[in-house]
Amino acid sequence: MVVKVYGPFYASPKRVLVCLVEKEIEFETSPIDLFKGEHKDPEFLKLQPFGQVPVIQDGDYTLYESRAIIRYYAEKYKSQGTDLLGKTIEERGLVEQWLEVEASNYHPPLDNLVIQILFAPELGLPSDPKIIQESEEKLGKVLDVYEERLSKSKYLAGDFFSLADLSHLPFTYYLANSMEKEYMIKDRKHVSAWWDDISNRPSWKKVLQQFGAPF
Amino acid sequence: MVVKVYGPFYASPKRVLVCLVEKEIEFETSPIDLFKGEHKDPEFLKLQPFGQVPVIQDGDYTLYESRAIIRYYAEKYKSQGTDLLGKTIEERGLVEQWLEVEASNYHPPLDNLVIQILFAPELGLPSDPKIIQESEEKLGKVLDVYEERLSKSKYLAGDFFSLADLSHLPFTYYLANSMEKEYMIKDRKHVSAWWDDISNRPSWKKVLQQFGAPF
Repeated sequence: MVVKVYGPFYASPKRVLVCLVEKEIEFETSPIDLFKGEHKDPEFLKLQPFGQVPVIQDGDYTLYESRAIIRYYAEKYKSQGTDLLGKTIEERGLVEQWLEVEASNYHPPLDNLVIQILFAPELGLPSDPKIIQESEEKLGKVLDVYEERLSKSKYLAGDFFSLADLSHLPFTYYLANSMEKEYMIKDRKHVSAWWDDISNRPSWKKVLQQFGAPF
Repeated sequence: MVVKVYGPFYASPKRVLVCLVEKEIEFETSPIDLFKGEHKDPEFLKLQPFGQVPVIQDGDYTLYESRAIIRYYAEKYKSQGTDLLGKTIEERGLVEQWLEVEASNYHPPLDNLVIQILFAPELGLPSDPKIIQESEEKLGKVLDVYEERLSKSKYLAGDFFSLADLSHLPFTYYLANSMEKEYMIKDRKHVSAWWDDISNRPSWKKVLQQFGAPF
């Protein structure tokens, strides 16, 4: 059974794609054009009632929310490909902690920057300098904690690459490449080394090569 | 070893408390006064570098982020107390999906309402009617999806109570009791039945009785 991933050209679905590559799981993709409103089609809403990507179909099993999907495959194929959950329940606890930090502390201000700096001009909407400034400040404080953490362990949850690091890839790609804010990473020595490490993984390079930079 | 939970009087730590009660795990609590800034004390920041509650200490193991802590204990004591993760990997996948929906879709607009309606007046700050209106609209759309989902299964992830339902308890308590917005639940038949069911669990009543309504 081949896993089908909806929306491969966008950022959040790329969490799923890079996870599937790390876990050596075969998949196919089905494009969804958000700019044409395909995520609001009744047929798509049957799969994902909130009208968001990604969704996966795996036989008759349907699952959405990128961070739920990557947990599912990391657990289902625990001993295949890269182990992304840690070796003990305590290591998995730390993976979960940093996955939550990514979702709750890191992602919201970064998402604001992406919307204001990249998407607003694309859609012909004005950018709000106040939101940009506040979001950069918030993200900077989060990255200061990361800097301290990454001075003590190679990856976020410990000395092993995990879902917690992987989950940062698609949106940090914008920060490192597309918004003239790369100093936020480069000026922090340990964050910078961590980003160099995880963004050079063959899995992430393959996803970028096959599906392009996140849009 | 008794688990120590920091910040029991606030809403997010109550996710942890209700989980520990469901799992029949002994715990003690350590109050943190956010209004006195105790979450910014250097000693506390050593435990939780972002200055947030909850944190737990369990022997020499420290963990933060409420939704990470509840996953940790649900897994560590899988066969003790209420099973909160489902019986199969596929059921756990759906628990993870709805935990993510709670964190990403449900919580942000509800949190905005709580801040604007309950906390701003408490802190002598003005409320923003535009944020209140937009947040209510967003939350209403999310609740419409819940209504549809809960017309088909008794709980969010299926016909079993899980972390996904439990995670909704502390903040939905505000919505159902403290903001004159209880119609958002009562007007939706299946959401209303679900809320009656989960908010009447002995575990939640015990947490409210012992630590008061979320603040």
